[in-house]
Amino acid sequence: MYSMWMAELAARAGCSVPTVKYYLREGLLHPGEATGATRARYDETHLQRLRLIRALTEVGGLRLETVHQVLDDIAHASSWHEAVGSAHTRLPGPFDDEAPPSAESAARVEAMLERQEWQLAPGHPQARRIARALDVLDGLGHPVSDRLLDLYAAALRPLAAYEVHAVHDVGPDGEPDVEPSVEAAVVGTLLQEPILLAIRRIAQENVSRRLAED
Amino acid sequence: MYSMWMAELAARAGCSVPTVKYYLREGLLHPGEATGATRARYDETHLQRLRLIRALTEVGGLRLETVHQVLDDIAHASSWHEAVGSAHTRLPGPFDDEAPPSAESAARVEAMLERQEWQLAPGHPQARRIARALDVLDGLGHPVSDRLLDLYAAALRPLAAYEVHAVHDVGPDGEPDVEPSVEAAVVGTLLQEPILLAIRRIAQENVSRRLAED
Repeated sequence: MYSMWMAELAARAGCSVPTVKYYLREGLLHPGEATGATRARYDETHLQRLRLIRALTEVGGLRLETVHQVLDDIAHASSWHEAVGSAHTRLPGPFDDEAPPSAESAARVEAMLERQEWQLAPGHPQARRIARALDVLDGLGHPVSDRLLDLYAAALRPLAAYEVHAVHDVGPDGEPDVEPSVEAAVVGTLLQEPILLAIRRIAQENVSRRLAED
Repeated sequence: MYSMWMAELAARAGCSVPTVKYYLREGLLHPGEATGATRARYDETHLQRLRLIRALTEVGGLRLETVHQVLDDIAHASSWHEAVGSAHTRLPGPFDDEAPPSAESAARVEAMLERQEWQLAPGHPQARRIARALDVLDGLGHPVSDRLLDLYAAALRPLAAYEVHAVHDVGPDGEPDVEPSVEAAVVGTLLQEPILLAIRRIAQENVSRRLAED
């Protein structure tokens, strides 16, 4: 396997040598192969891990502490589903540090989940985030209707099925290889979000353009 | 019209009096009705504006400078479509300060836009963000297929049509009132994003749960 010194590893990953040393000390990066008392060689697995950490922090906006927890979830998962669930629970979002949502908004989210026959893991922050967003938008005089929630759910349901099956089938012979496919799921959830949001904005502008031209 | 002193305005908006004074000085908040040399009364329009600023900064993650620009776009728009386009261009996203995307990814995004018959305003950052995301995901060994891009576009196209028509029809007698409907469009674009992303995560987890149970 191709191997390299730390300076080359850092350069190829686009980070500094002190950053690599820091990740090694913190256990975010696995040790290289020692070639003496103070030197070690690193390989593509180290480069891949550094790129993943960088993407999760810089693109995904995760704090390093959260990256550490998510990578631990991935490494120690006993099942694919469990790992995805716990990783999703750790991914940050707006409203996490705020007051609870109103009972009315919480009930509207519960009703939407029931209409979709969706269940949520205990302590799952997503329902709370949706309910708080409904409260904020209500307070601004731009309420979100139940119909729009259902449209979101209907649009995202087949997408989610495609996305999950795509990463679930990564392993050989139909037996998914837990670690890489969980990594793919977490990376996909978090790093594909900017793509989804950018396409939504483009789609909205094009509807708006058509309306302006009519 | 119900009116209030600054202390009540600040309390109802959930911010401090110095913050209100700062927004007044910066022109983010319009002056109240003077009742003496140093005192003024404020009304619901001030409260609404403060809630909007707070939502755009705290939920939308916009810097105050961007909020100012977006609010100026809304106030000075000559047409609804123009205002939405320029506001969208200002909304921040990942990759904005980075190197340009690879020619290959840029071409893939162009091809997707052509397949959808979508056009983009010049200088529009969304296509660049998508192409950079494709590069990052490629580098991580989790490439995004053209098929997934098309699925995103197909899922978001009818949603965008519903969303844009909903805010476009706000004005009386079919003649949209530019300021409120642009505000609704910007608020909707930015503040509904957490809802969309949370529903996507819930949908993914439920697909994953079904797979685990099978």
